[in-house]
Amino acid sequence: MSDTNGADRKLCIICSKGTLDMAYPGLILANAALMEGIDVTMFFTFWGLDMITKKKMTNLKATPLGNPCMGMPNLLGVLPGMTAMASVMMKKEIEKLDFPPVDEFLEMISDAGGKMYSCKMSMDMMKLTKDDLCEQIDEVVGAMEFMEMSEGAQVLFI
Amino acid sequence: MSDTNGADRKLCIICSKGTLDMAYPGLILANAALMEGIDVTMFFTFWGLDMITKKKMTNLKATPLGNPCMGMPNLLGVLPGMTAMASVMMKKEIEKLDFPPVDEFLEMISDAGGKMYSCKMSMDMMKLTKDDLCEQIDEVVGAMEFMEMSEGAQVLFI
Amino acid sequence: MSDTNGADRKLCIICSKGTLDMAYPGLILANAALMEGIDVTMFFTFWGLDMITKKKMTNLKATPLGNPCMGMPNLLGVLPGMTAMASVMMKKEIEKLDFPPVDEFLEMISDAGGKMYSCKMSMDMMKLTKDDLCEQIDEVVGAMEFMEMSEGAQVLFI
Repeated sequence: MSDTNGADRKLCIICSKGTLDMAYPGLILANAALMEGIDVTMFFTFWGLDMITKKKMTNLKATPLGNPCMGMPNLLGVLPGMTAMASVMMKKEIEKLDFPPVDEFLEMISDAGGKMYSCKMSMDMMKLTKDDLCEQIDEVVGAMEFMEMSEGAQVLFI
Repeated sequence: MSDTNGADRKLCIICSKGTLDMAYPGLILANAALMEGIDVTMFFTFWGLDMITKKKMTNLKATPLGNPCMGMPNLLGVLPGMTAMASVMMKKEIEKLDFPPVDEFLEMISDAGGKMYSCKMSMDMMKLTKDDLCEQIDEVVGAMEFMEMSEGAQVLFI
Repeated sequence: MSDTNGADRKLCIICSKGTLDMAYPGLILANAALMEGIDVTMFFTFWGLDMITKKKMTNLKATPLGNPCMGMPNLLGVLPGMTAMASVMMKKEIEKLDFPPVDEFLEMISDAGGKMYSCKMSMDMMKLTKDDLCEQIDEVVGAMEFMEMSEGAQVLFI
């Protein structure tokens, strides 16, 4: 009988956001969990698909709009180039901390045994096929299959 | 003694967002869990109240502002009508996937045995009474009651 | 052997947002859990650091931009002063419900036995030291240490 803790501890991370600042928490937690010997499953859905879509994953953005924590007035944030600038700045900060870019981070997590699944419904909505996704994705699954996989796990929705 | 898995597996979903793109993940997961025989409780709080408020639930919106994943420049996204347009487009995509609109989805989940509770404190803040909510809401409860309900459950905060 | 429910029920709340509307759900749930005798750990990361940074914690903001639930047109929301106005309005509503301001709420939770940790990596990224944080923070920890702390707990990512 499995349990949420002990030798067979499992962590499932649902990644539903595609911004830089919400992509990294999932990656960092997945990586930390693997280093602790925890079984890790990542499930990418909705905007989280951007994290694993070949054309987008190396170019995730951070936007100062609608996020007052970034401290940029909205009248400035709305100007062309501001999202790009905020994204470049955040990427630099992340690099300084020695975290790899998103695509390499996914590769690291996959190599360390993390399993990665993509949400079928979201892919249909965004007209993506498995070929559009990075090779680390083990399988495209539906919500019911995800529910089966997450049995006995601690589940995070990011 | 209950456990997070096995025959008496429980899932509690806290719905705190009222945008279209963050309403559906909770609905889809709740539905999938019920189809897997899992006990499901939904708790609506903060902006998540929009999902169950009669006047708003059929008119949830998706905004391209502050969400660079939608790929619309902020200078365009800020224009009148852009939120409405993005909302209509997303609703069409959701419909194409054969998912029902929010009000019907809640009815389906409730009919399948999903329990639904509304957060008392958030209702007070937004000056809502139980009459403002759809009939699927079983009860208005406080945070402490929610903590009791979620004992032994996998809990998602959306 | 611990379990997610029973006498040794544990709740871990990861606070990753620094807006008023996403700060309170974590505080309210932590408080309710403590009143139910549940062991509570809060982990502040990314924008959630604003909740515990002395210079920012008393001045968290709510923005109508990118949140259509607030019902303000984006063309208005982008104007100077609108974020400040929305923030003042929300603070008043929260006060009416007899919830304390963020700094006092953290003090209450800490006094009631809630443990609070800050994410080392996020602090490095934002160039913060422990002196910048409120005194309720027990320790600065890494993601691996957080994974150890959260063993057997129900974990919420806010």
